Amino acid sequence: MKKLVNDVHSVVRETLEGFALAHADLVDVHLDPDYVTRRPPKDEGKVGLVSGGGSGHEPLHAGFVGLGMLDAAVPGAVFTSPTPDPIVEATKAADRGAGVLHIVKNYTGDVLNFETAAEMADMEDIRVATVVVNDDVAVEDSLYTAGRRGVAGTVLVEKIAGASAERGDDLDGVAAIAARVNEQTRSMGLALGPCTVPHAGKPSFELGEDEIELGIGIHGEPGYRRGRMESADALVEELYRRVRDDLGLRSGERVITLVNGMGGTPGSELYICHRRLAQLLEADGVVIERALVGDYVTSLEMPGVSVTLTRVDDELLGLFDAPARTPAWK
Amino acid sequence: MKKLVNDVHSVVRETLEGFALAHADLVDVHLDPDYVTRRPPKDEGKVGLVSGGGSGHEPLHAGFVGLGMLDAAVPGAVFTSPTPDPIVEATKAADRGAGVLHIVKNYTGDVLNFETAAEMADMEDIRVATVVVNDDVAVEDSLYTAGRRGVAGTVLVEKIAGASAERGDDLDGVAAIAARVNEQTRSMGLALGPCTVPHAGKPSFELGEDEIELGIGIHGEPGYRRGRMESADALVEELYRRVRDDLGLRSGERVITLVNGMGGTPGSELYICHRRLAQLLEADGVVIERALVGDYVTSLEMPGVSVTLTRVDDELLGLFDAPARTPAWK
Repeated sequence: MKKLVNDVHSVVRETLEGFALAHADLVDVHLDPDYVTRRPPKDEGKVGLVSGGGSGHEPLHAGFVGLGMLDAAVPGAVFTSPTPDPIVEATKAADRGAGVLHIVKNYTGDVLNFETAAEMADMEDIRVATVVVNDDVAVEDSLYTAGRRGVAGTVLVEKIAGASAERGDDLDGVAAIAARVNEQTRSMGLALGPCTVPHAGKPSFELGEDEIELGIGIHGEPGYRRGRMESADALVEELYRRVRDDLGLRSGERVITLVNGMGGTPGSELYICHRRLAQLLEADGVVIERALVGDYVTSLEMPGVSVTLTRVDDELLGLFDAPARTPAWK
Repeated sequence: MKKLVNDVHSVVRETLEGFALAHADLVDVHLDPDYVTRRPPKDEGKVGLVSGGGSGHEPLHAGFVGLGMLDAAVPGAVFTSPTPDPIVEATKAADRGAGVLHIVKNYTGDVLNFETAAEMADMEDIRVATVVVNDDVAVEDSLYTAGRRGVAGTVLVEKIAGASAERGDDLDGVAAIAARVNEQTRSMGLALGPCTVPHAGKPSFELGEDEIELGIGIHGEPGYRRGRMESADALVEELYRRVRDDLGLRSGERVITLVNGMGGTPGSELYICHRRLAQLLEADGVVIERALVGDYVTSLEMPGVSVTLTRVDDELLGLFDAPARTPAWK
């Protein structure tokens, strides 16, 4: 294993230290327990947003802390849920008197630990609402998950709910917007190869020279089938059809697209994938209102891509377009 | 070779088509010959900026076309210089009556073809100035290059010269700023592994299981030594010392830093590298004014990192901070 790390047990800590040094204008990094907060904090009286989960998906979540998105992010160990303790601290920091929304990707550990943290916050009179993101149409009841997994669509929830909080919606309102984005969002990914968790020291799975994993999870969890390598166009079409059909997308509807790189995919390949996605949507009469192409929710250095579609109306689109200023949003 | 492509000979074309579909609000993509221009164009009477070079370094250059940076970018085939023809067309499109600056990375093919294009533009009464970027301290007279190579520092030249043009400096003024940034910029990189050019179909070089290449070029050209894998801290220190010494950096001076991922490096590792770089600069009494961490100038999916330092004064820093709106600048 060749990785630009020092001690495999201090990867998250040293990442946070580097993140703090690089983005001192936008965030404060707190250690012991570890969490990241927005600088300066949001105005009093507005709803706070907290998300988090295992590390290794950078820029998610800490890269999306800042004006218009998250007020705090809680990074666990690589591919490991954060414990309730830092979630509570992040929740207290994010509370500006109007309550806090927890945005939680649907993994059993994350859901449990955010739930515990919400109860602990409640004992300190902080009202917490929760949205569980479960956009991955690939499989039900995967490794680590009951129900569907939460993957790249989380970024859309963070962006749109963040704008809802920023415009002054109350906690029920922000939670309703977040739930609506999650309901209108579906994703699916594929991997051309594995990634290596530093403290594991070996690849998370193995694929043959001409083999790929369709429906891959963001921790390398199995998808719904292994297949032979095909053209980008054919693979994007398979992802698209499953996402579209599950979302029940019809001609005349409007979407935001996200072609997400998983860490080891060249930008050129992501644009080739977006090209095909746009062709397929056009053929189906669906309007792309906004398009994101890039590494938003990665799996370390995994080569692969996921396709996310979010059905939008004028309100969600307006919130998506609202200003955001964070280390990774562009 | 597993890549998300269709035909290895249409990678650049299909990338451009996808890029056009994703960023129609910011750029216009022209095909036959291939180049990308800013939408809407810059005001009349301001200097235009054109850059370009082989593809495979995304987001460079097309990702930096837009307000405050480039007016046009010319992508060649993967790792291959663009021919004069599209450079001339891009130059004509970028000319708003005040002349055009060519920003050229120092590779023999790029330099020759931009030179020819400048002569052709001159025949059409467009005044062209040129800055050749040669920030890589690793080697002299490398494969494809006489003198030093141009690498990640190119982004700093594009950003700062772009702001100079935007504020209304004339062609000599913008060219002088660009030359000043190049003089004040040094870079060096290392690779943990190779990348694969699609039409070559096999890795550009081979490294042993515990071996790395120090001073790697952005096309996988050899560096100044191969060595064994070491800690991130030790490797960053080696890059830093060579860059610092060549730049003649002293206590009390101010820099912009760029820790650049080469395509296959997780964000966490880049921040671990930035952490060490910041420690070393602090120990030397050098002030980090701004810090960039991310994939700016890649080599397809190569795992590796480069460190760039640009010495700045108030003027260069002010230009760096000026607004920019392009697909990839954040």
